[in-house]
Amino acid sequence: MSHRALHRHKRLRRTPPGASPGTLTVAPGAVRPQLQVMAYGPDDFSEAPLAAPGELLSVPAADVRWVNVDGLGDIATLQGVGTAFRLHPLALEDIVNLHQRPKVEAYDGYLFIVLRTPVLLPPEGHAFPDRLETEQITLALGRDFVVTFQERPGDQFEPVRRRLRSPGGQTRQRGADYLAYALIDAAIDAFFPILEAYGERVEELEDDVVAHPGNRQIARIHDLKRNLLTARRALWPMRDMLNALLREDSPFIEEHTRVYLRDCHDHAIQLIDMIETYREICSGLVDIHLSSVSNRMNEVMKVLTIIATIFIPLTFIVGVYGMNFDPAAGPLSMPELSWRYGYPLILLLMALIAAGLVLWFRRKGWIGKGQD
Amino acid sequence: MSHRALHRHKRLRRTPPGASPGTLTVAPGAVRPQLQVMAYGPDDFSEAPLAAPGELLSVPAADVRWVNVDGLGDIATLQGVGTAFRLHPLALEDIVNLHQRPKVEAYDGYLFIVLRTPVLLPPEGHAFPDRLETEQITLALGRDFVVTFQERPGDQFEPVRRRLRSPGGQTRQRGADYLAYALIDAAIDAFFPILEAYGERVEELEDDVVAHPGNRQIARIHDLKRNLLTARRALWPMRDMLNALLREDSPFIEEHTRVYLRDCHDHAIQLIDMIETYREICSGLVDIHLSSVSNRMNEVMKVLTIIATIFIPLTFIVGVYGMNFDPAAGPLSMPELSWRYGYPLILLLMALIAAGLVLWFRRKGWIGKGQD
Amino acid sequence: MSHRALHRHKRLRRTPPGASPGTLTVAPGAVRPQLQVMAYGPDDFSEAPLAAPGELLSVPAADVRWVNVDGLGDIATLQGVGTAFRLHPLALEDIVNLHQRPKVEAYDGYLFIVLRTPVLLPPEGHAFPDRLETEQITLALGRDFVVTFQERPGDQFEPVRRRLRSPGGQTRQRGADYLAYALIDAAIDAFFPILEAYGERVEELEDDVVAHPGNRQIARIHDLKRNLLTARRALWPMRDMLNALLREDSPFIEEHTRVYLRDCHDHAIQLIDMIETYREICSGLVDIHLSSVSNRMNEVMKVLTIIATIFIPLTFIVGVYGMNFDPAAGPLSMPELSWRYGYPLILLLMALIAAGLVLWFRRKGWIGKGQD
Amino acid sequence: MSHRALHRHKRLRRTPPGASPGTLTVAPGAVRPQLQVMAYGPDDFSEAPLAAPGELLSVPAADVRWVNVDGLGDIATLQGVGTAFRLHPLALEDIVNLHQRPKVEAYDGYLFIVLRTPVLLPPEGHAFPDRLETEQITLALGRDFVVTFQERPGDQFEPVRRRLRSPGGQTRQRGADYLAYALIDAAIDAFFPILEAYGERVEELEDDVVAHPGNRQIARIHDLKRNLLTARRALWPMRDMLNALLREDSPFIEEHTRVYLRDCHDHAIQLIDMIETYREICSGLVDIHLSSVSNRMNEVMKVLTIIATIFIPLTFIVGVYGMNFDPAAGPLSMPELSWRYGYPLILLLMALIAAGLVLWFRRKGWIGKGQD
Amino acid sequence: MSHRALHRHKRLRRTPPGASPGTLTVAPGAVRPQLQVMAYGPDDFSEAPLAAPGELLSVPAADVRWVNVDGLGDIATLQGVGTAFRLHPLALEDIVNLHQRPKVEAYDGYLFIVLRTPVLLPPEGHAFPDRLETEQITLALGRDFVVTFQERPGDQFEPVRRRLRSPGGQTRQRGADYLAYALIDAAIDAFFPILEAYGERVEELEDDVVAHPGNRQIARIHDLKRNLLTARRALWPMRDMLNALLREDSPFIEEHTRVYLRDCHDHAIQLIDMIETYREICSGLVDIHLSSVSNRMNEVMKVLTIIATIFIPLTFIVGVYGMNFDPAAGPLSMPELSWRYGYPLILLLMALIAAGLVLWFRRKGWIGKGQD
Repeated sequence: MSHRALHRHKRLRRTPPGASPGTLTVAPGAVRPQLQVMAYGPDDFSEAPLAAPGELLSVPAADVRWVNVDGLGDIATLQGVGTAFRLHPLALEDIVNLHQRPKVEAYDGYLFIVLRTPVLLPPEGHAFPDRLETEQITLALGRDFVVTFQERPGDQFEPVRRRLRSPGGQTRQRGADYLAYALIDAAIDAFFPILEAYGERVEELEDDVVAHPGNRQIARIHDLKRNLLTARRALWPMRDMLNALLREDSPFIEEHTRVYLRDCHDHAIQLIDMIETYREICSGLVDIHLSSVSNRMNEVMKVLTIIATIFIPLTFIVGVYGMNFDPAAGPLSMPELSWRYGYPLILLLMALIAAGLVLWFRRKGWIGKGQD
Repeated sequence: MSHRALHRHKRLRRTPPGASPGTLTVAPGAVRPQLQVMAYGPDDFSEAPLAAPGELLSVPAADVRWVNVDGLGDIATLQGVGTAFRLHPLALEDIVNLHQRPKVEAYDGYLFIVLRTPVLLPPEGHAFPDRLETEQITLALGRDFVVTFQERPGDQFEPVRRRLRSPGGQTRQRGADYLAYALIDAAIDAFFPILEAYGERVEELEDDVVAHPGNRQIARIHDLKRNLLTARRALWPMRDMLNALLREDSPFIEEHTRVYLRDCHDHAIQLIDMIETYREICSGLVDIHLSSVSNRMNEVMKVLTIIATIFIPLTFIVGVYGMNFDPAAGPLSMPELSWRYGYPLILLLMALIAAGLVLWFRRKGWIGKGQD
Repeated sequence: MSHRALHRHKRLRRTPPGASPGTLTVAPGAVRPQLQVMAYGPDDFSEAPLAAPGELLSVPAADVRWVNVDGLGDIATLQGVGTAFRLHPLALEDIVNLHQRPKVEAYDGYLFIVLRTPVLLPPEGHAFPDRLETEQITLALGRDFVVTFQERPGDQFEPVRRRLRSPGGQTRQRGADYLAYALIDAAIDAFFPILEAYGERVEELEDDVVAHPGNRQIARIHDLKRNLLTARRALWPMRDMLNALLREDSPFIEEHTRVYLRDCHDHAIQLIDMIETYREICSGLVDIHLSSVSNRMNEVMKVLTIIATIFIPLTFIVGVYGMNFDPAAGPLSMPELSWRYGYPLILLLMALIAAGLVLWFRRKGWIGKGQD
Repeated sequence: MSHRALHRHKRLRRTPPGASPGTLTVAPGAVRPQLQVMAYGPDDFSEAPLAAPGELLSVPAADVRWVNVDGLGDIATLQGVGTAFRLHPLALEDIVNLHQRPKVEAYDGYLFIVLRTPVLLPPEGHAFPDRLETEQITLALGRDFVVTFQERPGDQFEPVRRRLRSPGGQTRQRGADYLAYALIDAAIDAFFPILEAYGERVEELEDDVVAHPGNRQIARIHDLKRNLLTARRALWPMRDMLNALLREDSPFIEEHTRVYLRDCHDHAIQLIDMIETYREICSGLVDIHLSSVSNRMNEVMKVLTIIATIFIPLTFIVGVYGMNFDPAAGPLSMPELSWRYGYPLILLLMALIAAGLVLWFRRKGWIGKGQD
Repeated sequence: MSHRALHRHKRLRRTPPGASPGTLTVAPGAVRPQLQVMAYGPDDFSEAPLAAPGELLSVPAADVRWVNVDGLGDIATLQGVGTAFRLHPLALEDIVNLHQRPKVEAYDGYLFIVLRTPVLLPPEGHAFPDRLETEQITLALGRDFVVTFQERPGDQFEPVRRRLRSPGGQTRQRGADYLAYALIDAAIDAFFPILEAYGERVEELEDDVVAHPGNRQIARIHDLKRNLLTARRALWPMRDMLNALLREDSPFIEEHTRVYLRDCHDHAIQLIDMIETYREICSGLVDIHLSSVSNRMNEVMKVLTIIATIFIPLTFIVGVYGMNFDPAAGPLSMPELSWRYGYPLILLLMALIAAGLVLWFRRKGWIGKGQD
């Protein structure tokens, strides 16, 4: 199944309207969940895959436990994890419905956070070469645990895992809230390289749109705008979510973690700022494009008009002397044809007319004077 | 009567300006009301159609009573229901005036809620193929009752009824506020399949607008934008209404229902987000369309200009040698005509001119170099 | 004096800049004021025209007195009314300056309310067929009186008068605040039929703009947008005014009247919603219009290009064989002219060229394949 | 020095970046200050020009003193006035930097208010005929004094002076705050005649843009939009400033003056409302303009296409019979030339072709059927 | 390395996603830091370059110490400074990540402020002649110190240094907060000359876009809009930052410095106001440009159409009499050719046709009547 087909499919797979809240449905192509747990404190660290949610009970007690679920293709597993951490049925429904907007919701015993990270799909079709999608990551933050759910096994969180494994790292010294911060930060920062690449593309398009105005350019601008829109749809609510986390007086977030969340919030704002700037430039490029197309048409029309305006009258003149009136019919019947210098005179007349028209076009600025 | 005609008619049927508030007028084509009552608690359930509002008195006492009125074509019936639940005359006026915006209003003894759900009208006319309308549903939520009014017998609420009929369902365990939530949720979620279909259509249009720019595409984009506008008009106030429900400290809504309403609010935001995204893409498509039309015209003009620019001078030359100047009139009178190689030379000259022009066009990039 | 001239005149008639506040000036064409008083309570009712403000003293005591002034053409009369109800000089200045925005202002002893109701001016000039104007109505609401000032004798309030005259009507039972509500409601609801007519016109334009794109359509869209703008200028501040009335803790408005004002506020929002929707659709129509014009030009250009591209080369060929080179000059001097099948061969060649070009155009999609 | 040159110069004359705050610099072309003082109370009034700020000490004690400074060309004078009324260095800097936004700032002992009034510069250059500028007026309001600074001797405040001179006028009875109100009111109301003139111009442009679409119209629309922008830049902050004055609990503004400031605020809103309306209409006019230009080009193209499409095939036919194939070469070599009715038949054929094309164009709607 | 290449490079050099917060990375091309310290009070002043952060300990005690770091190319130095003033790791990370938005953040013991000042890069490439960039300046304000970090040795702060060196200057009398104000003020005021130059350019473009509509103009407008966007991205958050400084009850900012910060805030608003105005005018210019291009094409088309419409029919007529029908074939076979006045009559006929068409074009307004 191609990526875009997968994407289309996914979109249609949500709880049917009118269903009881908390109803879980699984997408046909969804990946079977794989569980992994990391339990750590300043001095101890363990990491293990889990075969089933039931094994969570056997995880050694630790300051912080991070359970990561990759793949949402099995309801029993998800419900098992849900039961273990007392997740609300509505939270579980949000986990499997993959088009949630980023948000934070306070439940009894944990904060429920929805994130989105960027996924670049390979180009498909002709007109619009590449497509940015965002993947949903849900995160439940309790006093001593973090549970994360991802659509697919992915490596966005790998740097965080590496930091956890190194004994002296800061992350190990801190609580679950700091781990949640680190994960949110990784999800948001993943947008930076993509938006920087878009910045480069905007500059390329700026050069290209003047040099080669055509349908390809406008399609590329549209494509870019669409991808920026996708990033924006993910980042605006992410910013709001961080704002809510900062303002909220939640028992799950300690004071000294707030300064890190503020930094994260700052990154979100910076990303949004980049997006809005690129969007504005793209809008300007559409104007330049339309103007370039019009100017090019103008140039085409000028060539046609100059050629036609010069030669049409001349062709008329030669047509006159191609008429077959009988010079013998009378003295006014095309006497020029028998003049000794009739032919050179008529050629001279035509040269004068052509020169006059060329001069007129030059004065109008249609010929010469360089291109602008 | 066709659907659109019905729609037009309906629009004109409202209380005349200056009329006393609470004046009820019935649309000529309105359907006669059909009443149905469901009374239930965790352990008991009864369901019956009612012939007249008076029969409401004989409904067995129950934890929650849900009276559904399908059709607004009889004032006496509506007033009967209004009296039974002590509805304010202004609320009754809102029930029969079918173009209310979604809202919630607190009255003594109940909350009065106006909802809108989508109705797809079949295509009509040529230019704009299909049309989304929204139907008004009004709902009064008291401590132990819910009354709903619909324009037409419809099946939006059927899944809720099915959940009520099943004894173990969660809905039966809860109060009237949870029933109201379930109905609001059903009304909002009905927008999802429609907007997902519009998402598909947006993608089709993206491909189509570059391949076949024409009036049909722009009309389809307009049609889509109009339908999105209709959905937006329903959903923005629906979101505000849910916001008000969440914030308001109403005695009719219990604490544990709020988390469900918050979920509902979330869905409304998600739908609005989809609408705004599609609207932005549609605006971009209009730009692409205009650009495609201009590019196509450019191409047409180039063909004309190339053909005309090459052949007009040549036609002038052959015209020159078609003039009837008498070669006998003098040595300068068209001597070429009698040259031994006059004809081949002139053919060669013309071939050179044509080749030169082709080269010039190629250098300008008007010929060859592929399409862009 | 034509309506539009009157309108232009009116605009220029306002207190000159720098004048002392409260300076009253009368427009040259203003109508002489006519006073009418209605005094009523649940059980009594009297109605009489007044010759002069002095007669106000002789109006019998009543629960509510409503003094209506039609026409603002006499300063002494206005000042007489102002004195009788202790209106502030700034309020009086607002009454005669006819381009106030709707607003509510609290003064000692009364609320001062500015309303605007729609007036349809007959078409004038060619390009823009009809024009919506709004008329200013000012209203002072005291504890037991309502004073209204109108530019011209009009019938917007006639239904309210009729309701007052009927003894059992609700309006008679209530205080001055309810009367004020009824008048505001009448002024706002007068926009409904006009906006519904605009809704119809939007649908007509949607059909028309694709079928007959031209200057007339764009002028009609502009006209509609301008009228919507006029309605919007009146209704947005009207909504704010009602909001202020609802929020304000004014002693002149009783609790049970608030629910009616809320309904009124609702109508204003609904009207604004209609306006914004129509405005958006109009903007879309401008796009469709431009696209239709471009597509039509494309079609024109295609016809020209096809005809010219086919015939210009053929005309060149026949021109070649119209040259007068002397076949006797040598064996290469137009020998074709004397070939036995020269003429049919050349006709065949030209037919082949024409057929080739037609095929090429058909492959490019410029010929046939239906219109899109 | 021309007005626009003056304007350009002025713009460049501001405190250089990094200079110490409170640095005063004088524009080269600035007018030398002229001081005038008015001292008054209900019963006394004196008015005198001052040669130097030192003479302020000899002004007789009075309820209110109004010192007006016309021209900002001498720093010593400005500093003298500043010292006399204890103006802060930053306030003095604002007085000479002429591109302040309107604002109100509370300092110890006075409110510092920046106003802008309109100045119409005479037309200059070709493309954009007239230009609205705004002049800065600064005002310091203390408990018993008002100091005003203007760029040039102007007459905006003359009506206020006249009111002060008349013994019975209201202004004389009131304090410095009422005088400040009167001056602000005069500055704001000076926009009314200008915006009313723009309203007229908008209506003229509406007629003109359809009748004569051309560069001149678009330049005039641009000019108007630019002037509206200038007015808007002055009036939006003026409104905010009045809002701040109304909200602020300043000791310099007495309760009964607030109702007058509210009126002033109202005027500002009304002016902004006019500006926004005209701006929207102007935007619509640009659409109409582009549409008119396109329609006109369509018309031009149609004429060309019709003429060319009819005559190009005919010219081809006559070209065929102008070929010089030798009829003697064979029976198929242009036998038509010697047919008895060859010539009339060919004329008839061409007439039929022309008639057919005319009919086709008529059916396409390109010929006749009136213009739209 | 060219400036733009440098700029591109810079953009890519940021902490990689998922890295531990506070990770410092240095850009390859970054300049080695140079430290300079100024220590001053009302009566004493010392100024010295520092070789290493360790030397900070030997700086004589003073009321205010200002440490300026030019260049961010050495992590050890930056960390040394960070340790000396107890800067938070996140603050240090912000210092080296050069694309921060302006902001203020409160940390224990200091306020951390990010500023941006304009840097004009030399023109590069063809289409877009010049480019505005902004440079990041970070500033930490403690009770008795200010630390500033700049990307490159620059002279924005030179005027402030000069003021510090002069013994009687105000700056020496005040605390660290006043120094911070002076630096912020210098950073903001640096935008004024640039925006004033853009104002001039807007006026030039206004003249140019009507006179010579072409791709160059639209590219220059785009360039200007892009630079305005850059300035706006820096100034909007700068305004918010100043707002936060004004509102916040920070122990680091004394009461009498607030009036200076308010002035600074005012300048930021004034700059934003200029930017928004220029942006609006630029948008209008795009409309004028498109309109000018269309009008010019209209003119070109008219010339073509007039010439073609006049000569195509005439060429057809002369073609008719160039046919070789044999006059001897019959009395109807081109008898005109032998008429005595055939030739002059046909010339007269053609003159009449041409005159008629010229008249028709004149009546249509396509010829003469001046240009508009």
